[in-house]
Amino acid sequence: MTIKHLSGLIAAPFTPMYADGSVNLSLIPTYYAFLKRNGVKGAFIVGSTGEGVSLSLEEKKAVIEAWGACTKGDMDFKVMPLLGGTSLTDCMELARYARSTNMYAVAFTAPFYFKPADAATLVQCCITVAQTVPDMPFYYYHIPVLTGVDIPMYNLLQELHGKLPNFAGIKYTHEDFMDFQSCLNFDNRRYDMLWGRDENMLSALAIGATGAVGSTYNYAAPLYSDLINAFNSNQLEEARMLQQQSIDMIHLLGKYGGIATGKAFMKLVGVDCGEFRLPVRNMSAEQFARFSADVAALGFSQFSAR
Amino acid sequence: MTIKHLSGLIAAPFTPMYADGSVNLSLIPTYYAFLKRNGVKGAFIVGSTGEGVSLSLEEKKAVIEAWGACTKGDMDFKVMPLLGGTSLTDCMELARYARSTNMYAVAFTAPFYFKPADAATLVQCCITVAQTVPDMPFYYYHIPVLTGVDIPMYNLLQELHGKLPNFAGIKYTHEDFMDFQSCLNFDNRRYDMLWGRDENMLSALAIGATGAVGSTYNYAAPLYSDLINAFNSNQLEEARMLQQQSIDMIHLLGKYGGIATGKAFMKLVGVDCGEFRLPVRNMSAEQFARFSADVAALGFSQFSAR
Amino acid sequence: MTIKHLSGLIAAPFTPMYADGSVNLSLIPTYYAFLKRNGVKGAFIVGSTGEGVSLSLEEKKAVIEAWGACTKGDMDFKVMPLLGGTSLTDCMELARYARSTNMYAVAFTAPFYFKPADAATLVQCCITVAQTVPDMPFYYYHIPVLTGVDIPMYNLLQELHGKLPNFAGIKYTHEDFMDFQSCLNFDNRRYDMLWGRDENMLSALAIGATGAVGSTYNYAAPLYSDLINAFNSNQLEEARMLQQQSIDMIHLLGKYGGIATGKAFMKLVGVDCGEFRLPVRNMSAEQFARFSADVAALGFSQFSAR
Amino acid sequence: MTIKHLSGLIAAPFTPMYADGSVNLSLIPTYYAFLKRNGVKGAFIVGSTGEGVSLSLEEKKAVIEAWGACTKGDMDFKVMPLLGGTSLTDCMELARYARSTNMYAVAFTAPFYFKPADAATLVQCCITVAQTVPDMPFYYYHIPVLTGVDIPMYNLLQELHGKLPNFAGIKYTHEDFMDFQSCLNFDNRRYDMLWGRDENMLSALAIGATGAVGSTYNYAAPLYSDLINAFNSNQLEEARMLQQQSIDMIHLLGKYGGIATGKAFMKLVGVDCGEFRLPVRNMSAEQFARFSADVAALGFSQFSAR
Repeated sequence: MTIKHLSGLIAAPFTPMYADGSVNLSLIPTYYAFLKRNGVKGAFIVGSTGEGVSLSLEEKKAVIEAWGACTKGDMDFKVMPLLGGTSLTDCMELARYARSTNMYAVAFTAPFYFKPADAATLVQCCITVAQTVPDMPFYYYHIPVLTGVDIPMYNLLQELHGKLPNFAGIKYTHEDFMDFQSCLNFDNRRYDMLWGRDENMLSALAIGATGAVGSTYNYAAPLYSDLINAFNSNQLEEARMLQQQSIDMIHLLGKYGGIATGKAFMKLVGVDCGEFRLPVRNMSAEQFARFSADVAALGFSQFSAR
Repeated sequence: MTIKHLSGLIAAPFTPMYADGSVNLSLIPTYYAFLKRNGVKGAFIVGSTGEGVSLSLEEKKAVIEAWGACTKGDMDFKVMPLLGGTSLTDCMELARYARSTNMYAVAFTAPFYFKPADAATLVQCCITVAQTVPDMPFYYYHIPVLTGVDIPMYNLLQELHGKLPNFAGIKYTHEDFMDFQSCLNFDNRRYDMLWGRDENMLSALAIGATGAVGSTYNYAAPLYSDLINAFNSNQLEEARMLQQQSIDMIHLLGKYGGIATGKAFMKLVGVDCGEFRLPVRNMSAEQFARFSADVAALGFSQFSAR
Repeated sequence: MTIKHLSGLIAAPFTPMYADGSVNLSLIPTYYAFLKRNGVKGAFIVGSTGEGVSLSLEEKKAVIEAWGACTKGDMDFKVMPLLGGTSLTDCMELARYARSTNMYAVAFTAPFYFKPADAATLVQCCITVAQTVPDMPFYYYHIPVLTGVDIPMYNLLQELHGKLPNFAGIKYTHEDFMDFQSCLNFDNRRYDMLWGRDENMLSALAIGATGAVGSTYNYAAPLYSDLINAFNSNQLEEARMLQQQSIDMIHLLGKYGGIATGKAFMKLVGVDCGEFRLPVRNMSAEQFARFSADVAALGFSQFSAR
Repeated sequence: MTIKHLSGLIAAPFTPMYADGSVNLSLIPTYYAFLKRNGVKGAFIVGSTGEGVSLSLEEKKAVIEAWGACTKGDMDFKVMPLLGGTSLTDCMELARYARSTNMYAVAFTAPFYFKPADAATLVQCCITVAQTVPDMPFYYYHIPVLTGVDIPMYNLLQELHGKLPNFAGIKYTHEDFMDFQSCLNFDNRRYDMLWGRDENMLSALAIGATGAVGSTYNYAAPLYSDLINAFNSNQLEEARMLQQQSIDMIHLLGKYGGIATGKAFMKLVGVDCGEFRLPVRNMSAEQFARFSADVAALGFSQFSAR
């Protein structure tokens, strides 16, 4: 399989919910159009931002199907679901489902209750799942802060190289730039290394990243498109200023309780995805009011998606 | 609901697998008879030892159903499944299923990908799930080494007390004896605190534990029954010697790669549960031979289940 | 060297300070008499509780000399200083000083900035320091929560056994009861294993501990003496109740900011040791008032030292 | 005090040792000349690389004095010692000594046995020490991987700003680029933010770093000077290639046991600093032979200092 390298911004969409906590599939076509309109090139669905772990298998299938249906025929918009999950059995079933529903690729993260003891065991897991869909690009999703699995990806590549033809690359959500750069340069830049820390995009561009997957591209894609353009045209001071704006925005996630803040941002850009499920806590109305004021003070409307 | 306090040994059974990795339900009646014969008083199924996280929801249901069928009518043998899992939706479905299949109680652990930020959020999760089966005892399963959720259980009890009538207690798999004892003594010893560290049973008995859930009770229950008897009859030197035997046995889990070692022990006692699924690694044949020799050197046959 | 096993309570004294933060040596004879009066059998000085790390080498020498002077001739009260520290050079100098000032033994903990990579390297450190004073008992102080060095002590004993004649044992301040018990039973109970978690004393007594070093023995020794007596006379319910009282008292350390709370307790028992040095924070006057009320509510005066 | 921003490469020198482990002061003038010859602009002495924690206070003074003596009158070469250390008393004494021996500035890291509970307490520590030398630039050294103190530096700046006139900036040895960039941009780039991760220099340059402190500048300064030049002249591909060479070199530190590898590199460039003290382990002769071969295979001589 020829490995395609994705470029530009790939959003990690939230899973829209109704007020009662059930999945709101009807919003997905609107959501897709919104992302397209703001220059986003793809969607990494039912991942961390998409609350995959909080959904049942049937719910994940329904979300995958909805994204597959509305993006069908759009060759310029790549959709890939995160398969799991701690159960490889579930991952394999979901991989087959993804193949039947117009997904571009599949992504897999390390089992995170029992954890693979070393790179060799993690590679065994990857191969087991990826072989289910040998004609689809397969990405590994590296996010140690959530999985607790902190095997260097350079070790994964060394172990995996040559063993899995549909292995495409890594969505890299971790701040080990030495490891990331070593992976970028592995075997003449063979693998597609997608950067996953929005707040450090400029540092990743500097060492060679060209594609990125993130949650803030859902609501602030124009900011990051400008950042990439500034970097590519050697306007480094401009790029730094934009990255600092991104950081100031992301500081609000820390201030207002983390991942649930993302759905609050979505309300502000007019794509109401409801709330997060437990165990994530959502803002109170009072917090949302303060949050909205803080967002306005940042000049959010000047760089937000619309 | 009156809270019953369980006593004696509750095993956390392995989920039997065929050589191809599929679940071997046919072994479960034999397994149950084996545990009964060795003095075990109950089973905590599809938990950590039972590889619940590696099974699909349908597989978990099948295992639950099989245990429910063979233990039906045995009032002296309590079976409870672990419900989850990161998805409360799945947990609620499984709770309802447990109720329909002769389970004594249900157990729930903290979501471990997104993690509850504090005791109040964890309590919300407990209530959400437990209310699905208001007439069944509901246990919280505390195992921070695997979930990464290390909220003191004393804080959980303070937060939860009076809010959830079917809350029965905690399976406590952690070495915070100060926290454990505070929970034991909470509200006049109201809650059922089940000790979950086999290697420290004597220390837990000393401060008041009376029931225990563990994986080594699958294959070495006689050792622990003797330990409890020695403790109860003030033969402390005998109890210490038995605990040291337990420790020497458990050292082999560290030496041979952790949890998968348990299924190797089961082969030695004649209840072949197959192997662990990925991401757990199993012993090679060569390792198994060395392991068997180490086990023999411990005098295992003198205290093993049979 | 014959290894003596210490028994009973050894306090880890606070280092008395004047209001300006300088060391108050003049209080030490009074402090010693106070401990004696309350049944304490020895003192582990300039350790964690004694703020050894916050003192200069000269200040540590002065404290050691003061304890040596006032305890001279008292064969029933054993004093040992903690030598370090990250610099073995300093540790060796202090060991020689300890020998010249009437100390019973010396204690050493793992360097905690650069950390020994394994048990063999830690043993090299121990030998380097202990050989300076080959005729003094040498204790290793295991406190991973502060040093970040979490090498199992069973591995240390296996590596060290037979190589260091003046190695006496371990002050064990960690909750790994499996490791502790394995060390207790090592080579026919050869080594002196001193328990260092006051809140778990009963659990440690159950598996065979006979001596303990701790900070709450400074101000609540009678409680623990009663606990040991209750345990030794098979009054387990009484021992549990006393341990719970100890836990309730220790909960206040968590509530009021940790180690500095200890010096607040000392004020209440009339041995005013001043405050902790930075980076430890002390209570405000307002906090001290609330703390004092909480202490009174525990019935502290019924079991406190006096 | 006007805050000067340092630029270019500042080495963190090893402390030279004789074969018997004593400090070799006589090499220091040679060492200084070697760094100057290779374009290094300053020295951060008795820090992590310089084994400050393994030296006695008197040894640290001797090293400081030796560097002060040979660099006297060289206004283009800035020397600053790390003061501590867990004892603020020692830090203050060393600060005064640094002032009397021609040091440009002083640096201080968080106490790492007892750890400051929050930014406010850490700021109190900084102020206590820095006020001893109010006319010297004072740097905070942020290295959570060794101190275990991971307070965001943005919080430190917010807490400290306006309270300490001689606070100059931060030596930042951590991979939190969001925090680093926020500090760079704080109060119109007021503070001097020195990057401390050699393997990520390019990513730090991209977001605005201009000065760097590191251990590999001791033996490979030409590589990094070329990297900075390439970056400044928009030759990004060249800069990336050089950063990858740096990474390949730094991979050998992991392979051969960490920090001690640095002194092995120094042997290869002809400035033999001896070995590290315990608890650091040094290479065996056999390891050194393999290491030397690996180094040669990297083409080290083409970019090493000479």
